[in-house]
Amino acid sequence: MCELLGMSANVPTDIVFSFTGLMQRGGRTGPHRDGWGIGFYEGRGLRLFQDPAASSESQVAQLVQRYPIKSEVVIGHIRQANVGRVCLANTHPFVREMWGQNWCFAHNGQLAGFAPLPGFYRPVGDTDSEAAFCDLLNRLRQAFPEPVPVPVQAMLPVLVAACAQYREKGVFNALLSNGDWLFCFCSTKLVYITRRAPFGPARLKDVDISVDFHAETTPNDVVTVIATEPLTDNEAWQPYGAGQWALWCQGECAAQGASECGTTE
Amino acid sequence: MCELLGMSANVPTDIVFSFTGLMQRGGRTGPHRDGWGIGFYEGRGLRLFQDPAASSESQVAQLVQRYPIKSEVVIGHIRQANVGRVCLANTHPFVREMWGQNWCFAHNGQLAGFAPLPGFYRPVGDTDSEAAFCDLLNRLRQAFPEPVPVPVQAMLPVLVAACAQYREKGVFNALLSNGDWLFCFCSTKLVYITRRAPFGPARLKDVDISVDFHAETTPNDVVTVIATEPLTDNEAWQPYGAGQWALWCQGECAAQGASECGTTE
Repeated sequence: MCELLGMSANVPTDIVFSFTGLMQRGGRTGPHRDGWGIGFYEGRGLRLFQDPAASSESQVAQLVQRYPIKSEVVIGHIRQANVGRVCLANTHPFVREMWGQNWCFAHNGQLAGFAPLPGFYRPVGDTDSEAAFCDLLNRLRQAFPEPVPVPVQAMLPVLVAACAQYREKGVFNALLSNGDWLFCFCSTKLVYITRRAPFGPARLKDVDISVDFHAETTPNDVVTVIATEPLTDNEAWQPYGAGQWALWCQGECAAQGASECGTTE
Repeated sequence: MCELLGMSANVPTDIVFSFTGLMQRGGRTGPHRDGWGIGFYEGRGLRLFQDPAASSESQVAQLVQRYPIKSEVVIGHIRQANVGRVCLANTHPFVREMWGQNWCFAHNGQLAGFAPLPGFYRPVGDTDSEAAFCDLLNRLRQAFPEPVPVPVQAMLPVLVAACAQYREKGVFNALLSNGDWLFCFCSTKLVYITRRAPFGPARLKDVDISVDFHAETTPNDVVTVIATEPLTDNEAWQPYGAGQWALWCQGECAAQGASECGTTE
């Protein structure tokens, strides 16, 4: 399958530490050799790095690990291909402009027999993940004509209902953002941790690197990291249950709930 | 203003040589310090590197200069801001998905009093360039409902008419691609060169670097490079006239013409 990485923070924060851990799983400590990608929101812009090469060997991944890009919202992904061959067009995260905002999406899982109605947004590659992302945006556009953009609280019922439907077709762990917030949906496997004062040390599971967040942060910083599996081995990551979703804004949980449909409950 | 760089080739070709020349003009030999970007088509995917930092100092630009990404269509840009502040969201090239294809656009010039009707595609940043790109795509979608995608020959009259209108509002030198072809429009300044066998040496104007294309190519290679100003000083770059446009496919000119409207003729 794949692994997800998300971050929501109340100050521009670099994700080099978590990203370095995740990248090891792209061919070194994990089997996700079929590409990787990461999108950093920077104001209204989105800085996207992607490579269909294994992250543990990618020159672009090495650059991103050396280059402390500070962002309040990040979505990353490493891929072990199931649907769709290994190529750039099938590499997450996927991006579309909607309502003058950059929307970014990454998915872990597989959807069986997923054939959404063609709409305005269409997949460029041939993954079920990009098809689901396009379908999600098509549903939002249809549900919310002008005036746009729509407050995220109004969108949540549409978002959650769509995710619950996708989940009925297989496994749908996903991250979605428009730069203002980070939405996550758990179908089978997703964990999170919120780091805030007093900050302590953290040690990566996949490579011998530690960081003392106390030295890197201010007392008001709040940083939430979401991942498929815990990235550190000395912190208490919280698991999401099947069907649970959450909306993160500036590192804090702004809304959460559980969808009632789904065949795996 | 800004400078454009485009490439159309019949084999995957790296643009490191031309890109290295252009990057010098982003703060070293030229004043275009306000960001740079380059998009490489790779199959149906598009690899985009952007930075609002000066290209002559950008770590990401250094990576791209070291990293011979091979592509058949490339669009690059260095920016000297006039409309819109210096930030990632205002950095060219701009990308949108239309009809399941990645469309990529870069613009040199400035449009006065440009306020297109809001449509499906909306600018994320606040440049006249991105507004023109969105308007261009909105016109194409409106002109060509299903079935899509449309052959480029059918689209050309709409494309050229739109560019001619933009040109009436100021300066509109532009590059546009969907990955299959490269379209260029000249309002004031655009040059091109087609390199084919017998290949010879080329020497950059902006930095002491030469390349012997004979050693780097096969006899069947055809590579066209389009730029705002010639990038080499020992080759004969061909200038486009005001209002001229061309469509390049696999390094060869597939169609060309001159628009008749425009206030500068």
